[in-house]
Amino acid sequence: MDSETAGLLKKLIDGERVAHLGTVRGGAPMVSMTLYMAERDYSAFYVHVSRLAWHTQDMMQDGRVALSISESDDRRADPFTLMRVTIRGEATQMISGPKDAWLTRFPEQAINFTLADFSFWQITPRDARLVAGFGRIHNISAAELKQ
Amino acid sequence: MDSETAGLLKKLIDGERVAHLGTVRGGAPMVSMTLYMAERDYSAFYVHVSRLAWHTQDMMQDGRVALSISESDDRRADPFTLMRVTIRGEATQMISGPKDAWLTRFPEQAINFTLADFSFWQITPRDARLVAGFGRIHNISAAELKQ
Repeated sequence: MDSETAGLLKKLIDGERVAHLGTVRGGAPMVSMTLYMAERDYSAFYVHVSRLAWHTQDMMQDGRVALSISESDDRRADPFTLMRVTIRGEATQMISGPKDAWLTRFPEQAINFTLADFSFWQITPRDARLVAGFGRIHNISAAELKQ
Repeated sequence: MDSETAGLLKKLIDGERVAHLGTVRGGAPMVSMTLYMAERDYSAFYVHVSRLAWHTQDMMQDGRVALSISESDDRRADPFTLMRVTIRGEATQMISGPKDAWLTRFPEQAINFTLADFSFWQITPRDARLVAGFGRIHNISAAELKQ
């Protein structure tokens, strides 16, 4: 991955706060919005989810996930040019998790730590696919993703 | 669905322009950002996609999809309160499609109609799941979705 692409990817992942998490539910696709946090080197991504949520039930059945992070729609003329990346990987439930960093990023989420049904899941990337513009598609390995 | 919920759903679907499309790829989840357009009564949703795109290849293998539409992140204190809906359904490739309405909605997309590899797909909803706020989750049938 060239340094310009790496810079775009960093701007995207570090600049956004919400992602769309893809899981398999009964053999069919499911997608739901989640908050996310990335390790500084993108070796792992974290979500903090309730076991009452469908995506959590799905990950308990099958840890394979896709996490899509897209530039927020800024109402530009052509929204198809919004940059986006999809990270595919394996999700595993964590015993504890990066609570302090999460609360620094999402202070309003403190309430969820008082609820017994929430826990962190770690997503370890297998690969990623970056769409940086029309026809500017980059397939990225987990090794390349790690900056 | 009560009229307040129906109003929120309408505001969401009519107000946004991009969605996240979930497909199954080799048995695993895939999610990618797409532009979308809805029938006025939400009996169908449309995407205009290239057969070179992974999601199109996936839909050709298995038409089951999930289309997630979320409020754009407006940088509010708690992004977990962003409203979102996931429509699950069946995607089928169309011979033609709603080209004029699509171009009214996305004028900059005209170029894609000069490319042979783009076509419309229609997503017929099977059900939907609306998250209108913390704990405000509504499971919606296709019949209820149709307004």
